[in-house]
Amino acid sequence: MHRAMVFQSLFLLPLLFSLTTATATAKRLRTIPRLSPIGPRVWLDHPDQILGESVREDLETFFYNQTLDHFNYRPESYDTFLQRYLINSKYWGGANARAPILVYLGAEAPIDEDLDAVGFLVDTAVEFSSLLVYLEHRYYGKSIPFGSREEALKNASTLGYFNSAQAIADYAAIIIHIKKTLQAKDSPVIVIGGSYGGMLASWFRLKYPHIALGALASSAPVLYFDDITPQYGYYALVSKDFRGASETCYQTIRKSWEEIDEVASKPDGLSILSKKFKTCNPLTDASELKNHLDSTYASAAQYNKPPTYPVNKVCGGIDGGGFGDDLLGRVFGGLVAYKGNRSCYVNEPTNQSETSVGWRWQTCSEMVIPIGYGNDSMFPPDPFDLKAYIEDCKSLYNVTPRFHWVTTYYGGHNIRLILQRFASNIIFSNGLRDPYSSGGVLENISDTVVAVKTVNGSHCLDILFAKETDPEWLVAQRKTEIKIIKEWINKYYADLSRF
Amino acid sequence: MHRAMVFQSLFLLPLLFSLTTATATAKRLRTIPRLSPIGPRVWLDHPDQILGESVREDLETFFYNQTLDHFNYRPESYDTFLQRYLINSKYWGGANARAPILVYLGAEAPIDEDLDAVGFLVDTAVEFSSLLVYLEHRYYGKSIPFGSREEALKNASTLGYFNSAQAIADYAAIIIHIKKTLQAKDSPVIVIGGSYGGMLASWFRLKYPHIALGALASSAPVLYFDDITPQYGYYALVSKDFRGASETCYQTIRKSWEEIDEVASKPDGLSILSKKFKTCNPLTDASELKNHLDSTYASAAQYNKPPTYPVNKVCGGIDGGGFGDDLLGRVFGGLVAYKGNRSCYVNEPTNQSETSVGWRWQTCSEMVIPIGYGNDSMFPPDPFDLKAYIEDCKSLYNVTPRFHWVTTYYGGHNIRLILQRFASNIIFSNGLRDPYSSGGVLENISDTVVAVKTVNGSHCLDILFAKETDPEWLVAQRKTEIKIIKEWINKYYADLSRF
Repeated sequence: MHRAMVFQSLFLLPLLFSLTTATATAKRLRTIPRLSPIGPRVWLDHPDQILGESVREDLETFFYNQTLDHFNYRPESYDTFLQRYLINSKYWGGANARAPILVYLGAEAPIDEDLDAVGFLVDTAVEFSSLLVYLEHRYYGKSIPFGSREEALKNASTLGYFNSAQAIADYAAIIIHIKKTLQAKDSPVIVIGGSYGGMLASWFRLKYPHIALGALASSAPVLYFDDITPQYGYYALVSKDFRGASETCYQTIRKSWEEIDEVASKPDGLSILSKKFKTCNPLTDASELKNHLDSTYASAAQYNKPPTYPVNKVCGGIDGGGFGDDLLGRVFGGLVAYKGNRSCYVNEPTNQSETSVGWRWQTCSEMVIPIGYGNDSMFPPDPFDLKAYIEDCKSLYNVTPRFHWVTTYYGGHNIRLILQRFASNIIFSNGLRDPYSSGGVLENISDTVVAVKTVNGSHCLDILFAKETDPEWLVAQRKTEIKIIKEWINKYYADLSRF
Repeated sequence: MHRAMVFQSLFLLPLLFSLTTATATAKRLRTIPRLSPIGPRVWLDHPDQILGESVREDLETFFYNQTLDHFNYRPESYDTFLQRYLINSKYWGGANARAPILVYLGAEAPIDEDLDAVGFLVDTAVEFSSLLVYLEHRYYGKSIPFGSREEALKNASTLGYFNSAQAIADYAAIIIHIKKTLQAKDSPVIVIGGSYGGMLASWFRLKYPHIALGALASSAPVLYFDDITPQYGYYALVSKDFRGASETCYQTIRKSWEEIDEVASKPDGLSILSKKFKTCNPLTDASELKNHLDSTYASAAQYNKPPTYPVNKVCGGIDGGGFGDDLLGRVFGGLVAYKGNRSCYVNEPTNQSETSVGWRWQTCSEMVIPIGYGNDSMFPPDPFDLKAYIEDCKSLYNVTPRFHWVTTYYGGHNIRLILQRFASNIIFSNGLRDPYSSGGVLENISDTVVAVKTVNGSHCLDILFAKETDPEWLVAQRKTEIKIIKEWINKYYADLSRF
């Protein structure tokens, strides 16, 4: 199995090779599991469109004239681009009441996508009398520098400005602008984000405490950098999730990789596999199938949401055996259970998403999350290969990933020792079934830098729209978070009255 | 008086007009009082050279391959330059003992200059068993990117990388490198700086708490940005210092400006003034004289050190009246008392210093310290003119100062409200006679973010070499600082043993 292609299906589309001429090498690039709060559409089991529309009615769209490079003073760094943000003022108690401002920090996707799924702001708006602000991350959606997406993504010279430090500086500038415009100097700001956006939220509170009073960082794997977290954490958890759902399912998957290789090695092996898995296009290499399965399992585990619980679905299909009692028939049954009845599976023709294009750059510049496959997983062992990773990125963009930069700029090593006497007002929330929780903050650091976790939760559940079917533990998680944020705000009001 | 040229003599040399073609406009540039820990050589009344040599014997020089742009991933941003740092390991207790590392953060000068004056590290080395590290600021001394000073200072395209955020990122990278090299992972780092370097120290602790356990920020006017501190603070304090030394001296100076203008307006006025003040070159404008006097008074107040106390010296000369009892004769007497017997005064031929060249760029990019002259001063009122300031900078460098950036990135507004529940381990030390103390943190913010001040102190006294003649209040100030830093370190050791 070529691990390099792992997870491309998480992006629901192949890597955009047109961005580079080094197609052959590009194929080897090991991508990092998607970090968005929302999983593949197939798993979005609440009626997005309807929810989205009613939420969008209350939103006004603005564009801020954003500085291209906050940390440089070359004439080009003064260039600006229009950065999109949206405001819902329907529930706001107003500047005079010093009513709070809840700011959602957009991540590696157009902000629109998250509006349909991230409900924490709207769901709590009445309770907080809050102004709701949604900020779009630079280089995504409509917030593109250099005039066009084509130009912005052309090469490292234009992509160079695309990184997290610039992104949170953008957010600082916009939030100051909004507060000034609304004359809401004393309104406390709470920043909220999920996954990569959750990292941004916690980092924003650390770097800009004078702008945000607190942060809710949902499923933010801030510790999955350098050597802080064991590289095998992610897939160990995927495997644990499957084993927890069904031991036979887990064993079936574990044995399947060898079986696929064995069949593939036969004279007509690839065509047998193509038929068996009803592939949309004939397989040219067994790795295509294995990578697809790999990312299917990872995705199911990461977005293992109630009420349907994808891991249970996949395992139901595998254990059910409706497509033959043999190993591969069972595995195919898992795919069908996951995706429903389709004319074909694997190798689907797909379009490139902004997330896959943008996130690939981000992972090749600074967001190096070393994820490998260890012995305690249902996948063949395959340690993270930094050297190969760097070479792939170099051939793609002609720049070397700055492997240590995230821990240099944001920290992470000995986080408890460092932050217990520094910083305050950060919630790190996690669902422990989320494979990314292996790189999350799972223990309280201090009275106000706290971990809120759920045993059965998956990726970013707490910041999604509340639903009738939400289990009690999820309802309780959100209640805890709201209570904590209220305490921050009340303490702030008390402080404010004393100064 | 053309306020634009104020303080050029603080840099001991005229502005480097060769940097720009806009000479006429350049002349109008209002420079900002020098921020270095050390004043003009004339006031250095301890035997620098001797001290310097003995201190330097213990120093080893290193060069670190530093990244040009930490916040950008364009291919050019990966360029590197050799950054100088010096280490004194004579007193270090070693990595096994987790003995502390005291790091002096270089500011707007070659690091050599500070070695001769900044003694806090060496003076406390035995007490702390500390490793001593001195880091040179990018674009100064031997830490020049782009191969040569000429190239580095050529224009905004090469100067653009010259700013505080990049500088403290440099420091982060070097400190991590040093700790790694020495296998001193657990040795606590205390950063120390004076004036602009003091701002860097406090900002470093705020942005990189995972790298520095604490900061001693001496005479750091972190609040002299935007509208946090009244713009008249600096000159109000200069005036207060003079009034405190001698009411008649203060009144003489206060009345002298009009007198100078009156004489200058006579047919032969400038030549009368030139003769009166024994100028080295004939005055071409009264502003030359007035700016020189202005900066002399400011410098005397800022570096009003024991045991000689320059303000007393100047006022002794003015009140003594050895050069005539008339107003201007008295003022000249002040000059002579300040500078000693010379063949000529004012308009001295001088060389351009690195500080004046570098700091001018820094004040024209981000370090916009709005200093104006109010009614409660001995100078003619002259409010800070941001518009003219921006225009001057634009004509010099073709870029606009980012007036609000310092407060956006580092904060400063409502500092007590913000930092009382965030951050820890920062000492803001000030001497209240230092005009820059008007922009300093003068009250405790929390138990561990504290103000240590002396009523009679001037600029950066506490971090200079201790001397026999030091008054008790200065000795006490240093003792307090050492005690506080020891508490940080002991608490850190206790924490470390628990994790």
